[in-house]
Amino acid sequence: MIRQKELAFDQAIDDMKHGSPILIFDDAKREGETDLIFASQFVTSDSIKMLRKEAGGLICTTIRKKEADLIQLPYLEEIYERFLPYGKKATNTSDMGYDKHSSFTFTINHRSTYTGIPDMDRQVTISKLVEFIKNIESKEDIVDEFYTEFRIPGHVHLLIAREGYFGERRGHTELATYLVERAGLVPSATLAEMLSDSGRAMTFEEARNFAVEHNLTFIEGKEIIEKWTND
Amino acid sequence: MIRQKELAFDQAIDDMKHGSPILIFDDAKREGETDLIFASQFVTSDSIKMLRKEAGGLICTTIRKKEADLIQLPYLEEIYERFLPYGKKATNTSDMGYDKHSSFTFTINHRSTYTGIPDMDRQVTISKLVEFIKNIESKEDIVDEFYTEFRIPGHVHLLIAREGYFGERRGHTELATYLVERAGLVPSATLAEMLSDSGRAMTFEEARNFAVEHNLTFIEGKEIIEKWTND
Repeated sequence: MIRQKELAFDQAIDDMKHGSPILIFDDAKREGETDLIFASQFVTSDSIKMLRKEAGGLICTTIRKKEADLIQLPYLEEIYERFLPYGKKATNTSDMGYDKHSSFTFTINHRSTYTGIPDMDRQVTISKLVEFIKNIESKEDIVDEFYTEFRIPGHVHLLIAREGYFGERRGHTELATYLVERAGLVPSATLAEMLSDSGRAMTFEEARNFAVEHNLTFIEGKEIIEKWTND
Repeated sequence: MIRQKELAFDQAIDDMKHGSPILIFDDAKREGETDLIFASQFVTSDSIKMLRKEAGGLICTTIRKKEADLIQLPYLEEIYERFLPYGKKATNTSDMGYDKHSSFTFTINHRSTYTGIPDMDRQVTISKLVEFIKNIESKEDIVDEFYTEFRIPGHVHLLIAREGYFGERRGHTELATYLVERAGLVPSATLAEMLSDSGRAMTFEEARNFAVEHNLTFIEGKEIIEKWTND
């Protein structure tokens, strides 16, 4: 059942709190893509299986700018522009249709995983990241402790939500992380793009049908941004 | 049907030449994982769909060290170690069970793609990379032309096979790239790890059964390395 628009936000928050995945369509004027999204603290091996089998895009885990700064995690574009002689040209997004910036930082593996790629390994990496973020304030040397636990490069893509959310960027990274934070959970979401067997991204209609079939909440970015505006 | 061991190598080469995927199991003493592998020059949108639905790991495209050097593509660990104050600790692999180095360099998107993640987008990125490599000798300013065509970060993981192949590393990156080169094709393979619904990587037995069910050639790393040794 598609929830009434005015109810979708509350329902999405409620689903997040209960560990259920939701679907977020960003905007027809942006990517025009739908992501399948879990609150990271509830990610299981089966969540990863669902993300790869039902969604099919890159499996990524988000963090807020605040925690990224404490860990000194940069955006990849920052490193490339600063340190590579051809960096500015390589990262240039003037021909990117939907935004000016990506959210990518490093890929990570928890050091207790073996190759890092099976569902159980990716779940361990994500769960250990949640634990790290939850206790981040109590750490003495955050960066050192981070790399005692995690190795780069790895197999889980980390994404950093832009500071303050939607002023700067309105992507799935910001939409998902904001929702998880509003749900009062550890502020990290795990997500992947919903791909269609047509070779394209799932259309709005395909994604909405998927939501109905799987009894998942489907919400549009503008509904989330409206709530944020009125915060 | 499982091919006789002495025939598997020739069959794998023949499959590559005809655009059919094959399965490579590295070694029980290494990752103990099987990758599904296509010669990049024959990758279609359906190949990407098969990689995400049947394999499930990270979808990556390999290149040789020779072309990587011409494009000035570094291993990620080299950048991290050189430019990040905590780089050496972050990339330390003393606790990595199966190797001392990963093959990762940048993720890329061809600039003509939109988001870069749907099957058709990833196919375009890979096909354009094949074309770039094929004509690399005729280019005047290779690095500049590379970033005129491709943006980083993107959604296709590039992997660099170690120089000379198996002296330095015996991973799927080297095994697959060597096979494609031996097949006389543009030396680039596109691959992903075969994951099991158990949450683990597919076992040797599971992967071999998959090969039988799908009538695919299944070959072990040691058979490929043996051919290389006798080259």
